[in-house]
Amino acid sequence: MYFCAMISKNLMKLVRSLDQKKGRQKEGLFVAEGPKVVGDLLGKYTPYRLIATEEWFRQQTFGKRFDDVIATEDELRKISFLQHPQQVLGLFPLPSENLNVGNPEEELLLALDGVQDPGNLGTIIRIADWFGIHTIVCSNNTADTYNPKVVQATMGSIARVNVVYTDLPTYLSELSPMIPVYGTFLDGDNLYEQPLSNNGIIVMGNEGNGISEEVGRLINRRLLIPSYPEHQETAESLNVAIATAITCAEFRRHMSCNSV
Amino acid sequence: MYFCAMISKNLMKLVRSLDQKKGRQKEGLFVAEGPKVVGDLLGKYTPYRLIATEEWFRQQTFGKRFDDVIATEDELRKISFLQHPQQVLGLFPLPSENLNVGNPEEELLLALDGVQDPGNLGTIIRIADWFGIHTIVCSNNTADTYNPKVVQATMGSIARVNVVYTDLPTYLSELSPMIPVYGTFLDGDNLYEQPLSNNGIIVMGNEGNGISEEVGRLINRRLLIPSYPEHQETAESLNVAIATAITCAEFRRHMSCNSV
Repeated sequence: MYFCAMISKNLMKLVRSLDQKKGRQKEGLFVAEGPKVVGDLLGKYTPYRLIATEEWFRQQTFGKRFDDVIATEDELRKISFLQHPQQVLGLFPLPSENLNVGNPEEELLLALDGVQDPGNLGTIIRIADWFGIHTIVCSNNTADTYNPKVVQATMGSIARVNVVYTDLPTYLSELSPMIPVYGTFLDGDNLYEQPLSNNGIIVMGNEGNGISEEVGRLINRRLLIPSYPEHQETAESLNVAIATAITCAEFRRHMSCNSV
Repeated sequence: MYFCAMISKNLMKLVRSLDQKKGRQKEGLFVAEGPKVVGDLLGKYTPYRLIATEEWFRQQTFGKRFDDVIATEDELRKISFLQHPQQVLGLFPLPSENLNVGNPEEELLLALDGVQDPGNLGTIIRIADWFGIHTIVCSNNTADTYNPKVVQATMGSIARVNVVYTDLPTYLSELSPMIPVYGTFLDGDNLYEQPLSNNGIIVMGNEGNGISEEVGRLINRRLLIPSYPEHQETAESLNVAIATAITCAEFRRHMSCNSV
């Protein structure tokens, strides 16, 4: 029996290999899925290959290129990393690391110190995008931005936020104490009672251990997100993406109030 | 060859069956894992059975009971729902639905209109706990609280927050318009410029579709979480747990300011 596969075994193997960082680096590619995420990326990058339903191709302003693949929903299901595959899977070239890192003397940056969970990293990229933070500086042990789970959780914000990896203590030690370096701690000062600047770096830590000792020493503004009512028995901590959101929202509320 | 399994096949099968709502309802049990979550639940419920390492049992003030099981880490790995199993897995009796629903005339409640993702629901329960919100009223199509993924994402807050399921439109229609019913919308009024009450209900919607039309009609205070800078091209939306956190944080900031 002859079976005409639209998605070749080799292509299937290539896509699978991009689940791992090693595979992504070897091939220089990453995977994005669904009309929203792929659509946002198409605004910025030329895809290496698109695998999509006929209907999805029809809805685009551009046509299917030679190497693009029309697939049925069943075929997409086989190749997808998602539980519910959505019309299109794109392979994009890994962007070369952007050296145009934001300037914390003039704007607000986020730094991540060992955030491990891909869903958290993706959600934090989406939060940064919402709050107009253009650069996230990650410690080298932070999850990889181009992990398919991260890309998906950004809901397309990955196309607008610049994520760079570096030795975080070295990076911060060149800035602190001249630049405000903020971090949230359970024994910090109430976020709502502190002066918050329009520039500097907000550091968020690892899911289990928080901010590492080495990085903690370089933080010059220790903040606390107060629980309610204060000093009562509640949850002991917040998820790192949640803490990022509350902190960024307050910085931006401050800036909006001050600029009025 | 005789293999002395510490965890019997039947117990293994029982635990697996608790991944599904049907199984949980049939057995009247749910699963919690790890010292933090199990520890918090032990403060409130008597477990049906604990499966844990010898070391974990040794660290407790109580002893291993007749039906509890000592397991090696390898055995725990086989039975666990987690990627990285943690010392203890507990089976707890499903609490009977608590009829002591909070009173929105006097306090702040959360309502969820079709939140689907277990991780989001668990994170929202953790947020409610942090911000001293004791009751979450869920529409019947919201994810089940006792799904192992939800329990895990609450990080123990499930022991302190009362989650009830009901026909949400009916519930709200009995309260609105007398009680403030808040919801966040992309065309709502800036959260930071609105009067926020110390009582009422904050409604959060489904991941993809937001608040349903039927529930939307019962919302009498439409809020917007402003992005920054406003009206610029940023992420189109925030994850529902993130939006919940930012909204609750602002209500609580308000209350703290007003009570000083």
